[in-house]
Amino acid sequence: MAKKNIGRSFNIFPMPVVIVGTVTDGKPNFMTAAWVTKLNTEPPLLGLSLGRRQHTAKGIEQTGEFSLSYPTIDDVVLTDYLGLVHGYEEDKAAHVEIFEGALAHAPMVRRCPVTLECRLVQKVELPKDYLFIGEVVNVYASESVLTDGKVDVLKLRPFVLTMPSNTYWALGEPVGEAWSAGRALLKTAEGSDS
Amino acid sequence: MAKKNIGRSFNIFPMPVVIVGTVTDGKPNFMTAAWVTKLNTEPPLLGLSLGRRQHTAKGIEQTGEFSLSYPTIDDVVLTDYLGLVHGYEEDKAAHVEIFEGALAHAPMVRRCPVTLECRLVQKVELPKDYLFIGEVVNVYASESVLTDGKVDVLKLRPFVLTMPSNTYWALGEPVGEAWSAGRALLKTAEGSDS
Repeated sequence: MAKKNIGRSFNIFPMPVVIVGTVTDGKPNFMTAAWVTKLNTEPPLLGLSLGRRQHTAKGIEQTGEFSLSYPTIDDVVLTDYLGLVHGYEEDKAAHVEIFEGALAHAPMVRRCPVTLECRLVQKVELPKDYLFIGEVVNVYASESVLTDGKVDVLKLRPFVLTMPSNTYWALGEPVGEAWSAGRALLKTAEGSDS
Repeated sequence: MAKKNIGRSFNIFPMPVVIVGTVTDGKPNFMTAAWVTKLNTEPPLLGLSLGRRQHTAKGIEQTGEFSLSYPTIDDVVLTDYLGLVHGYEEDKAAHVEIFEGALAHAPMVRRCPVTLECRLVQKVELPKDYLFIGEVVNVYASESVLTDGKVDVLKLRPFVLTMPSNTYWALGEPVGEAWSAGRALLKTAEGSDS
């Protein structure tokens, strides 16, 4: 497959979509974000990169706490709204019914079936952003998205973001089982002599 | 929506899937990963978290370079295989036709229509993992996935991973336009008096 150098501007295909909750200047504040990843299993750590001047970044710096809420495809409009406007321009929390957990400064979105509250453990300074590394303190889930006590993605119905098309997508068909589909290529595959 | 505390073990819903390429102990090596995110736009930085003892982590530490390749749904088996086996146990690169870019230690997967080569700029020590922060030096794409010179996700056909179901999923239907769908809730919406 011949390839063309298309520069160094890149995207992640695709990106998860979360709503970050903070208390900024003493008030609950929410912002949609997509630059988020798991970092470590035990303790459970995640990384979230935000512009340094975001109202949300300010809240995390002020309180050392934040939350993540996973929106479903039913809440695309609310989610997109929370990413369109700056928290210092508009009281976005007015559109959000808040769910409070154990932390005082990690308001969560009640409509979102899975939410996490986090304590900041490290802030990495990047050229224009901050990477906030948070330890997950509690995960909350609605019974409606659980199967055998675990989050069932078919019930959760999350969506993803792609750029540069700026489109949200539902998940589609399953295309394989992880830690299983690749066994066909294992040297030590059953029935193989090699 | 009532919520239940389900502990502090968490997942990102869903995760992107990439194949990381390195030169480890002088040989090309590939590993599937899902703990990856964009971190900064200019310079273009990404973050990739890997177990400290991974053969891939060793390669990044040895050379300061690595690559990311985006597999399509046609290559689920190869992708899963590259995540099943350790590079110090099996020569996984034997299954990969390599594409070389400008860097000497960032082998890419030719079958993957979009690939990035990166230089390590920072390593963040986590309790059990390393977060590698890489600057993207070049992005390579096959003409077959470009529309007007940009990567078209409908042509790329990436897939995502969810846990704990351990399933790979294709993208489904578009459910909204980003930076647009939320305008309905803007205070300053056209035609609104509020």
